Amino acid sequence: MYPESIKNLIESFKFLPGIGSKTAERLAFSILDLDDDQVAFFSNSIDSVKKNIHKCSICNTLTEEDICFVCSNQNRDNYTLCVVEDSKNVFLFEKLGIFKGKYHVLDSLISPLEGINPEDIGIEKLLNRIENEHFEEIIFAFKPSVEGETTALYIKKILEGIDIKVSRLASGIPIGADMEFLDCLTLERALNDRKSIE
Amino acid sequence: MYPESIKNLIESFKFLPGIGSKTAERLAFSILDLDDDQVAFFSNSIDSVKKNIHKCSICNTLTEEDICFVCSNQNRDNYTLCVVEDSKNVFLFEKLGIFKGKYHVLDSLISPLEGINPEDIGIEKLLNRIENEHFEEIIFAFKPSVEGETTALYIKKILEGIDIKVSRLASGIPIGADMEFLDCLTLERALNDRKSIE
Repeated sequence: MYPESIKNLIESFKFLPGIGSKTAERLAFSILDLDDDQVAFFSNSIDSVKKNIHKCSICNTLTEEDICFVCSNQNRDNYTLCVVEDSKNVFLFEKLGIFKGKYHVLDSLISPLEGINPEDIGIEKLLNRIENEHFEEIIFAFKPSVEGETTALYIKKILEGIDIKVSRLASGIPIGADMEFLDCLTLERALNDRKSIE
Repeated sequence: MYPESIKNLIESFKFLPGIGSKTAERLAFSILDLDDDQVAFFSNSIDSVKKNIHKCSICNTLTEEDICFVCSNQNRDNYTLCVVEDSKNVFLFEKLGIFKGKYHVLDSLISPLEGINPEDIGIEKLLNRIENEHFEEIIFAFKPSVEGETTALYIKKILEGIDIKVSRLASGIPIGADMEFLDCLTLERALNDRKSIE
């Protein structure tokens, strides 16, 4: 019933996560309201992102260069390594400007339920870096979850005997949260990780 | 901070209505997870929809042909014309299969607040059709709103003296709705438009 090209565009939007039929239809029609330059820019951007973006050869962060903007920056703290699950976390940390060290992006977190085993997370590349660079501390910045915990514990075990400090992000009560709406696990973790007031 | 091509793709998604920064970022990254074929299909669809889609020369419905699939269908009821605000309504009616007549898509509804005056809604094309085709009834299928009412009344006034039945979609209580959650206007309209039970 829809003309072929509208139908194809609706199907295209449905490729994207969280976009159902209704939203895909709405978005497809909205493309018709853009001007020609915007449409060309949009379709070129889609092509170009797939063509030009790949993983940094050192840390796996998505980049257009061989080496990403963090790894190629000489002014970073070279002694602290933040290990994350996804490039998006690197961009988030950089946007917030709260971390000055280096990053390493794993291929994935360990998740036996999804069939992702320890050998699938890209551990060798991380171990090579730890061997060849001179990190004093490695920080796991995974989301608090079974997968995050498992991966952190697994890597910590492998690093046993190596003289490096291993830490993880604090979990606990988010700033501004109401105590009564917190889940039990968060509260338990906040209690266990309590800090002395000095 | 983002690589150039990711930044461009995020900006592209922000062209679309209802897509803010966070969603644009999520969607842009999700393009990287598509396979090459899907990405090519997506960008081609965007180009193609803008290139190939235009208004039907008879009724203004969006189409890839000179004449849309309804106007070129010889088996429609040629005596009933449904006037709508947007091509999307044509596709919706056709999807539901609830109307067998012809359609006419206005350029817009009259909206003095947005500076859209009676001469901006494409009335001549509609009047030409009414003059040359042999409709017995014209149905306004606008959303119940000030703009919809104004446009319907305006066209009805122009058609005065022409022997054609003019009607609008019933408004009232949607099937399955709870009375207590209905707004006052809907309830008033439902009361005024009450139907005798035979």
